[in-house]
Amino acid sequence: MGGLAEHNCEVLLENTLKVSCMKIGVEEEPEIQAAVRVLLGGLGEDVNREGYKQNVNDIVEGALFPEAGLEDDKVGEAGGTGGIVIVRDLNLYSSCESCLLPFQVECHVGYVPSRQRVVGLSKLSRVADVFAKRLQDPQRMADEICLALQCSIEPTGVAVILECLHIHFPTLESTIVDPSQEGWKKVVVSSGSGVFENKEAGNDMWTEFFRLLKMKRLVADRIQKSISTGHWCPSQAPSISAIPSDMVSAVATILRTLGEDQLRKEVIGTPARFLNWLINFQTRDFKMKLDGFASKIWEPRKSDGDMKGNMKIHSELNLPLRSQCEHHLLPFYGVVHVGYFSAVGMTPIGKTILQSVVHFYGSKLQVQERLTKQIAETMAPLLGGDIIVVAEASHTCMLSRGVEKFGSSTVTIAVLGRFSTDPKARALFLESLPFTEL
Amino acid sequence: MGGLAEHNCEVLLENTLKVSCMKIGVEEEPEIQAAVRVLLGGLGEDVNREGYKQNVNDIVEGALFPEAGLEDDKVGEAGGTGGIVIVRDLNLYSSCESCLLPFQVECHVGYVPSRQRVVGLSKLSRVADVFAKRLQDPQRMADEICLALQCSIEPTGVAVILECLHIHFPTLESTIVDPSQEGWKKVVVSSGSGVFENKEAGNDMWTEFFRLLKMKRLVADRIQKSISTGHWCPSQAPSISAIPSDMVSAVATILRTLGEDQLRKEVIGTPARFLNWLINFQTRDFKMKLDGFASKIWEPRKSDGDMKGNMKIHSELNLPLRSQCEHHLLPFYGVVHVGYFSAVGMTPIGKTILQSVVHFYGSKLQVQERLTKQIAETMAPLLGGDIIVVAEASHTCMLSRGVEKFGSSTVTIAVLGRFSTDPKARALFLESLPFTEL
Repeated sequence: MGGLAEHNCEVLLENTLKVSCMKIGVEEEPEIQAAVRVLLGGLGEDVNREGYKQNVNDIVEGALFPEAGLEDDKVGEAGGTGGIVIVRDLNLYSSCESCLLPFQVECHVGYVPSRQRVVGLSKLSRVADVFAKRLQDPQRMADEICLALQCSIEPTGVAVILECLHIHFPTLESTIVDPSQEGWKKVVVSSGSGVFENKEAGNDMWTEFFRLLKMKRLVADRIQKSISTGHWCPSQAPSISAIPSDMVSAVATILRTLGEDQLRKEVIGTPARFLNWLINFQTRDFKMKLDGFASKIWEPRKSDGDMKGNMKIHSELNLPLRSQCEHHLLPFYGVVHVGYFSAVGMTPIGKTILQSVVHFYGSKLQVQERLTKQIAETMAPLLGGDIIVVAEASHTCMLSRGVEKFGSSTVTIAVLGRFSTDPKARALFLESLPFTEL
Repeated sequence: MGGLAEHNCEVLLENTLKVSCMKIGVEEEPEIQAAVRVLLGGLGEDVNREGYKQNVNDIVEGALFPEAGLEDDKVGEAGGTGGIVIVRDLNLYSSCESCLLPFQVECHVGYVPSRQRVVGLSKLSRVADVFAKRLQDPQRMADEICLALQCSIEPTGVAVILECLHIHFPTLESTIVDPSQEGWKKVVVSSGSGVFENKEAGNDMWTEFFRLLKMKRLVADRIQKSISTGHWCPSQAPSISAIPSDMVSAVATILRTLGEDQLRKEVIGTPARFLNWLINFQTRDFKMKLDGFASKIWEPRKSDGDMKGNMKIHSELNLPLRSQCEHHLLPFYGVVHVGYFSAVGMTPIGKTILQSVVHFYGSKLQVQERLTKQIAETMAPLLGGDIIVVAEASHTCMLSRGVEKFGSSTVTIAVLGRFSTDPKARALFLESLPFTEL
């Protein structure tokens, strides 16, 4: 927590920002305008509910309970003094200050009680949530949670570890070239105060904190390394000419409405980065590219229809999927499984081609139901007409916006031709599906 | 969904109950009164926020999006028609109508779109939440979610599966006798409408739903069996004389305030069952029982102090813990690990005795910090003064009350004597701790 001075406490605890509801007065092309309105609505829900308006002292005050420590004749640490108290595996989500996308946070908080009092456990979670529900950077969030708990509880020390996962949203070009590109960027950050101030390897408090977290995979070394990597957001700075300036102004207005200082150096490029990402899903001449690609490489296999007796089901499983939900402008990600009939002895269609189609339909504003149908309809004529497509995906709109259903996933299915009329064929394919961790 | 007739739809969708805030005008002994006030506060938060006051039509209306189905020249199911859409692994919690304790729910919802429209995915979660945030029985909850979705979306069919976990809160007597008594009661229930109406083995729609849930362990047979077990709540009916009638009236008032029909046959015994469970934590003569028990069986091992050179750490891991949070009157559960020095060659103290002490301090209103300290302080004189106690627990108050942090757990530690002054001894014990699934 090195850089944060003590006088920050009061600001942090009382930071009831004046949130004003300003209207966007900028003219954009209607489609983009509608999209930004949806986004503003989504973010606006947060403004009214949590985050910037919350006051940490209000949360903690009234939840500090007297709890006797050890009696004088005993040597040790327990109860209201000295024994560490940890709440681990708190699922949070936050929004990246650099690109506005939500990111997932696994949060672990520990503190060492003093002054013969303990804090209600749920308050550790609520305070962490206050700082998560803002535009954030992982290290800053860890520092803010740590400082706020230190100032409000006044314990012997506070330790915070955040494991953050940011979706790595590839550009269209990079996915076509390299479909296997990793989907996530992970950083682990920590912050400590009091007895946790010093994070060097020799600090027994940190060593015990790690042991009690059962994070054997996580060593102090790696945390230090993560901290030093600096900027973590995988979004790319756009070429300035690519983004119309009135759109940038519109997104800047959103940030101002949220109570953000738009001139803060971490945030100043955010509107452009967000729009760069958004515009990737508006590329209209890409359809033509795919058509050209298809006519050159794919040979429709009409002859297959005459050989039904010798057909077997070929499965192409776990094709990576990334897309963007058109209702909330938020990413969803997962896998697609494709099944089709293939004549015995024939070479199945290449995985690369199927992956390209998945990326093509993923790379626009979508709903998962439509995406699944489009993949099936595009591939069907090239595969003899009989096809089954199953998509499994996690939707970040199910994490944020007050729903907060961590770990949930959505499955959709499209069946054409024989897969629709023959339950046995469908069953045979569905039984071949792997267990998926999303 | 057999028993629910179509005319229930309107009632279910429009059920904006009149919730009045009535004051409890009953005189009880102050301690119990305070406890009931805390409970009312906790439940009251829910009344003002979600559950009884929510209207399913408000949630779904505006989230039905037109989505084209397959074109006329194609045979199959996809998009806005016929392809099943599933949202799986939604974590919910609900409150048992029989004993008022919260129970966990893993919810899986599927529907088959029709009329060329789909519903926003998060709405499936929100509708399920409306019916979870009431006093519930698993089968009734599944039927209500199913009926509400069928009536509001009007799809070809709806399928709902709920995996419910109810804490099995043992009585003091049963835990002392049998500390290994299983902590959870699990039931799986399902409900279907439209193409899912018939749950027999031959229904392809159910078969596919299961396959897409990847619930290979879950067969239709077992669901049918769970449904037929009837009453699932493990709370016990008390002997009438044991519960003061004014306390029963106080809890009945809480139910009325929530908008519940107190005369409904499932709820009529709830106040007595809840109080029976609460009173288990108020048994005051139990301390004496433990003291008598201890003086007979345990021999303080003072001689150990002279043999420090030949001592080794003995660990007793994973002692089951059940207790009740005094801030919210809600259960917490987990395991306790105890470490102490034992002279080489000496028989370690029996696991049964340690387990009895854990149960003794668990069987009252507690905070985890104090519980951990009390176990350490009670056992220390009998174990030569050097002891380390680590408690790991999940708190149901972290699930309910708006926090809803599923999967989080709390770790507390107490160290006495040598474990407090010797970091190496502490480290040796902490390294021996197993990975725990809570």
